Amino acid sequence: MNDSASAVSSPASRSTGLLTDKYELTMLQAGLRDGTAHRKAAFEVFARRLPGERRYGVVAGIPRVLKAIEDFRFTEDQLADLDFLDEQTIEYLRNYRFSGQVDGYREGELYFPNSPLLTVRGTFGECVILETVILSIMNADSAVASAASRMVVAADGRPIIEMGSRRTHEYAAVTATRAAYLAGFTSTSNLEAAYRYGIPASGTAAHAWTLAHVNDDGTPNEEAAFRSQIETDGVDTTLLVDTYDITKGVETAIKVAGTELGGVRIDSGDLGAVTRRVRKQLDDLGAHNTRIVVSSDLDEFSIAGLRGDPVDGYGVGTSVVTGSGEPTASMVYKVVEVEGHPVAKRSSSKRSVGGAKRAIRTHRSTGVALEEIVFPFDAEQPEVPSHLTVRELTVPLMRDGHVVEGLPTLEESRAFLAEIRGTLPWEGLALSKGDVPVSTRMVGFPPAK
Amino acid sequence: MNDSASAVSSPASRSTGLLTDKYELTMLQAGLRDGTAHRKAAFEVFARRLPGERRYGVVAGIPRVLKAIEDFRFTEDQLADLDFLDEQTIEYLRNYRFSGQVDGYREGELYFPNSPLLTVRGTFGECVILETVILSIMNADSAVASAASRMVVAADGRPIIEMGSRRTHEYAAVTATRAAYLAGFTSTSNLEAAYRYGIPASGTAAHAWTLAHVNDDGTPNEEAAFRSQIETDGVDTTLLVDTYDITKGVETAIKVAGTELGGVRIDSGDLGAVTRRVRKQLDDLGAHNTRIVVSSDLDEFSIAGLRGDPVDGYGVGTSVVTGSGEPTASMVYKVVEVEGHPVAKRSSSKRSVGGAKRAIRTHRSTGVALEEIVFPFDAEQPEVPSHLTVRELTVPLMRDGHVVEGLPTLEESRAFLAEIRGTLPWEGLALSKGDVPVSTRMVGFPPAK
Repeated sequence: MNDSASAVSSPASRSTGLLTDKYELTMLQAGLRDGTAHRKAAFEVFARRLPGERRYGVVAGIPRVLKAIEDFRFTEDQLADLDFLDEQTIEYLRNYRFSGQVDGYREGELYFPNSPLLTVRGTFGECVILETVILSIMNADSAVASAASRMVVAADGRPIIEMGSRRTHEYAAVTATRAAYLAGFTSTSNLEAAYRYGIPASGTAAHAWTLAHVNDDGTPNEEAAFRSQIETDGVDTTLLVDTYDITKGVETAIKVAGTELGGVRIDSGDLGAVTRRVRKQLDDLGAHNTRIVVSSDLDEFSIAGLRGDPVDGYGVGTSVVTGSGEPTASMVYKVVEVEGHPVAKRSSSKRSVGGAKRAIRTHRSTGVALEEIVFPFDAEQPEVPSHLTVRELTVPLMRDGHVVEGLPTLEESRAFLAEIRGTLPWEGLALSKGDVPVSTRMVGFPPAK
Repeated sequence: MNDSASAVSSPASRSTGLLTDKYELTMLQAGLRDGTAHRKAAFEVFARRLPGERRYGVVAGIPRVLKAIEDFRFTEDQLADLDFLDEQTIEYLRNYRFSGQVDGYREGELYFPNSPLLTVRGTFGECVILETVILSIMNADSAVASAASRMVVAADGRPIIEMGSRRTHEYAAVTATRAAYLAGFTSTSNLEAAYRYGIPASGTAAHAWTLAHVNDDGTPNEEAAFRSQIETDGVDTTLLVDTYDITKGVETAIKVAGTELGGVRIDSGDLGAVTRRVRKQLDDLGAHNTRIVVSSDLDEFSIAGLRGDPVDGYGVGTSVVTGSGEPTASMVYKVVEVEGHPVAKRSSSKRSVGGAKRAIRTHRSTGVALEEIVFPFDAEQPEVPSHLTVRELTVPLMRDGHVVEGLPTLEESRAFLAEIRGTLPWEGLALSKGDVPVSTRMVGFPPAK
């Protein structure tokens, strides 16, 4: 224990070793004693179902996972705290560097129930202790990206600003921003995400700005707030017009900025009715190019509901950083192969298929995705009819503990997702609950012994 | 931008300055130009409603907030990235140290809609830019603590292990653990939380451990897994008995460990029916003291549903770290006073009461809480009838930018919550949706101008 009130990560923050569950290390210890830790094993990340009966999920967090695996090591301070372990285990952790193989889906790839998203191969000991941190990252990032992708589709080309940092853990906010941007959000309010990931930052003013402009007798002075903002940020800024009265706010905004005002933001009320009224008011005032940006607890459904209204951009906060009702992607990390033998849990509700896996997706000549075929990792790729095209979903990510060269950048993964999302059958983009549009078929797996 | 795949926080992690929204800094810049930044202001954290129509919320994250405020400063690297700001603003941020006053509710205190949870006083400029990081921490930590508290009540004295790290962001996991422990959870699986906050860690083995023990022909060998675990961890360990067949698993567990086995864990199936059967089986085998621990997507409702069953402990994961359906506490940070004048937004759905505030709670002679009374920060404490006792809810937290001495430790706040929770009227502990059991009354505020 070092800092009981730390708002940020500990000084040993380059180490991810303690971002793990105690039982991973007690299993390691028992495994070092009985030899199990040295057995060859394969672990797999997959999801038994998609949260909220959604139609597809978006894989996110892959570069963060690979970095966390590389940083999975232990400082002497940390080791001193692990007093429940014997000397052999401490020594193992002191020297720990993951030296195995990781293969999996690209960041930005679509996934479905039972897609083999990540396959981690090495010794049982070196793989088992990575479970927690791999799942933390993939579950958090994929939950946000999956929700964000639905919002991007609902927005139908209109820009969305991510502005939910205040609604989630201070560092989860940073990576949520990254996941939202991956999914097609245009920019973010979060400056740490802009700094760390190069994501465009945006934002102009809050209600506090308008409220801070009171006259000497305490009466509001919205005009002074607008005038000052225009003087500092120029007429292309966006003025927040709903602090007191929206109609009056719009009138004051144009009076101060002129008809070249960049935009107005509305953060309350019945946004459909209000935006129609404001658009008419702006047009009547001659401010035809002044954009209307809306915020206020928007999610994919309310975004879609505004499709027919004069909205030029959305600001989305709470719903995107919390996965819009589904804050975790419910992915699991299961051992699937030990010394070449497929293994799987058999208890009633959580059955799975043993054996390390890879996957391909078939597409019709139109480009539309048809089926995901999952087959044994070391097997030949299954034959598919010649009128279908085949895309390999499983790509090498780490070799002998090192991240492979040439993995896509965040921008490239963002473009990849935008393209791949277009291959979903049309029902796959529906916001309603329902069946997944691309089924997953397991080919070539023997029954468990 | 420095590290595009960082799994952890940046090397400048002691700085929380960039954990903010861009508009906070553009407002600061405009405020430095027009003088607003130097006006005396008070900001307030409060929640307009409790998520999910719950009966009470639990304040959490206070020491983390105070630390984040102390660490709110900017490195030269960070400043270089803020190229949208003028030199005057950059210079302000370079020298920024919060020097104002913070007062608020203790960590572990109960709260209700419109409770004035935190009051931050200083200049408009120095207070406004703290909004995002204060809310991130309080919203995340209070969401978890509020959900966790309901689970602790539902468990009715039985221990609960927090084991949800894998279902949320890798650092949100650490602070979620802290919030769950504050609320009365007994221990955690998360080793970083154990290291950082001194929370007891627990956990024994996963299904992977059992699955890794296969014979040379690939057939399962649960007995070898159990035997090895017992040899390493002793007979007081907990064996996970549901990898293949629960009845067979229990039989094997007792065969290997003897009747002094510490516990068995069951992670699937109809837990009520299964625990009753397993209890009978254990008793028939003479293992009367062997505990039964259950896990598998438990939340406060399923915990309560098992109250009549032979369960000795719960493992709770996803639901607690995600706030059991309410992943954020929806607290806001609003300017309430400028140069001594109360200010408040007036737009339809988001009205609030202006003016800096403090609060007391009255209790009947039985100790039961009656009412929360909110009054102007600088006013005299309102008179209450002499048969009621009064508790001051607002305490000093920072003076002139420094955290006050003697704030409670995590253990003390945990004990405080356990005690204060006992003052709720009985309907306040109900899990069902409903009205809050303690109403909040505003006294002595003039109408906004």
